[in-house]
Amino acid sequence: MNKLLAVGTVAFDAIETPFGKTDRILGGSGTFVGLAASQFGVKTGIVSVVGGDFPSSHIEMMNSKGIDTKGIEIIKEGKTFFWSGKYHNDMNSRDTLITELNVLENFTPVVPDEFKDAAIVMLGNLHPLTQASVLDQMTKKPKLVVLDTMNFWMDIALKDLHTVLKRVDVITINDEEARQLSGEYSLVNAAKKIHEMGPKYVVIKKGEHGALLFNNENMFYAPALPLAEVFDPTGAGDTFAGGFCGYLSKTGNISFENMKSAIIYGSNLASFCVEKFGTERLQELTNIEVKERLEAFKKLTQFDINIS
Amino acid sequence: MNKLLAVGTVAFDAIETPFGKTDRILGGSGTFVGLAASQFGVKTGIVSVVGGDFPSSHIEMMNSKGIDTKGIEIIKEGKTFFWSGKYHNDMNSRDTLITELNVLENFTPVVPDEFKDAAIVMLGNLHPLTQASVLDQMTKKPKLVVLDTMNFWMDIALKDLHTVLKRVDVITINDEEARQLSGEYSLVNAAKKIHEMGPKYVVIKKGEHGALLFNNENMFYAPALPLAEVFDPTGAGDTFAGGFCGYLSKTGNISFENMKSAIIYGSNLASFCVEKFGTERLQELTNIEVKERLEAFKKLTQFDINIS
Repeated sequence: MNKLLAVGTVAFDAIETPFGKTDRILGGSGTFVGLAASQFGVKTGIVSVVGGDFPSSHIEMMNSKGIDTKGIEIIKEGKTFFWSGKYHNDMNSRDTLITELNVLENFTPVVPDEFKDAAIVMLGNLHPLTQASVLDQMTKKPKLVVLDTMNFWMDIALKDLHTVLKRVDVITINDEEARQLSGEYSLVNAAKKIHEMGPKYVVIKKGEHGALLFNNENMFYAPALPLAEVFDPTGAGDTFAGGFCGYLSKTGNISFENMKSAIIYGSNLASFCVEKFGTERLQELTNIEVKERLEAFKKLTQFDINIS
Repeated sequence: MNKLLAVGTVAFDAIETPFGKTDRILGGSGTFVGLAASQFGVKTGIVSVVGGDFPSSHIEMMNSKGIDTKGIEIIKEGKTFFWSGKYHNDMNSRDTLITELNVLENFTPVVPDEFKDAAIVMLGNLHPLTQASVLDQMTKKPKLVVLDTMNFWMDIALKDLHTVLKRVDVITINDEEARQLSGEYSLVNAAKKIHEMGPKYVVIKKGEHGALLFNNENMFYAPALPLAEVFDPTGAGDTFAGGFCGYLSKTGNISFENMKSAIIYGSNLASFCVEKFGTERLQELTNIEVKERLEAFKKLTQFDINIS
């Protein structure tokens, strides 16, 4: 069992989908990563920041799941990061209605002493310099550094992103972002170019079309589970990343073979995430449900061809 | 070993992609289906029509692959169906530049006696009434009827399409068309609705995102092999269908389990098709190449999780 350190946002989301809308509910990349990783019973610490308006009940819920929240700074006089978005009918595209950075604007992550030797570090989608500052605080070189990013940082901080990428083992990125970062349309060629930037492993998230894992000449593909209804896609990518890191932390094995399983576990948890608004489904998720759905993933993808 | 009967177009295509352009080259759904099925050494008959301008060398090439062309009518005074298209940079969308139906306009398929008892019938993308007329000529109820169609027929001949669908076991259709036919956005729900129209098996083709097979509660997903370069996507869907039918004809087993393998074989052949213009890659394809790539498909998708 390895310690997992995750830096990311802990936030309020207000979400509108064709199925309904929410008030301010619990969200944020750090929250989803932590909840997903908590499925594996690994020691997970979240580094983030919230305002005085953040209910202690959310913190208590995270603690009850075994998530260490000492790294979540509370700025009493500040307000919690708030994002509001509206999904289109296809659920694959969305408009951002409101982004209030609030306390996130001057966020300087402080890694608790207890997690400065974490074996696995998940750098959630934040400014590349913020991500780098987390690595700077580690007293022991992590076994694995996983970084998530997005087109926004490529637009405004590409040089910083390139600098931090040199210190990263695994990048998780969506298909359009992989194309933007590499300048290559083919995802195979995109992964090759991104390997050269630093990450030995490239995970390309394709939403409802699944995810690809590249490691030089090795490729692995995990589908997303086809669902009758996608209720709210918010947090699915972070849940995927949290499941991926959680499984690797639990098993302590960072081989390509084991990463394949980690990708399946991540896809599995993400398939639950989208079934209800926000973190609701992850909060109530049982071990038995997770196992049953893993069986569904096996059935969905495994075949038996005798090549002769 | 079962006989395979395929009705479809045998045509000239002129293709433009970001990588180059062609003069009139051999194309057509029947051609691709036949070439893909020929990989399995099954007795395949093509029913189609061409004009006097169609070179006998193309017919000879098909015969050399073991394809029975007795069902390809030659209308000496007519001209062969011609399609010209230009692919966009993403290779996923294309504009049709020219469609000259020519001899296809009054095409009345005539099934050769030898194939009236074929076990597997592939109804290529044609007017639903034309597809139905092929079934009417069968003297023995086929073991499996596979139908391919497109949005065009949903727009202009939906009622006829519904009529023929009642006689069909497997429909192959792309994701957008599945949504149009069913009125459901979710592919799971779309497949359910399409089951109710007749086909017990629904194959949804998602291009570079692979293919899904539905049979009531059973689902199977086959990815497309991620390729460094897609040179020309023309015919990939028909090659997929031809590989699917060819494998089922060879094995004579139409269980869901065996259809999973058939989907993998179809995806495998389609991955070759797109590597060169038109039918070029399929014509030169060797057994060893096919086997090697099947191993790549296994590596790409197979994982080993001990669910406990």
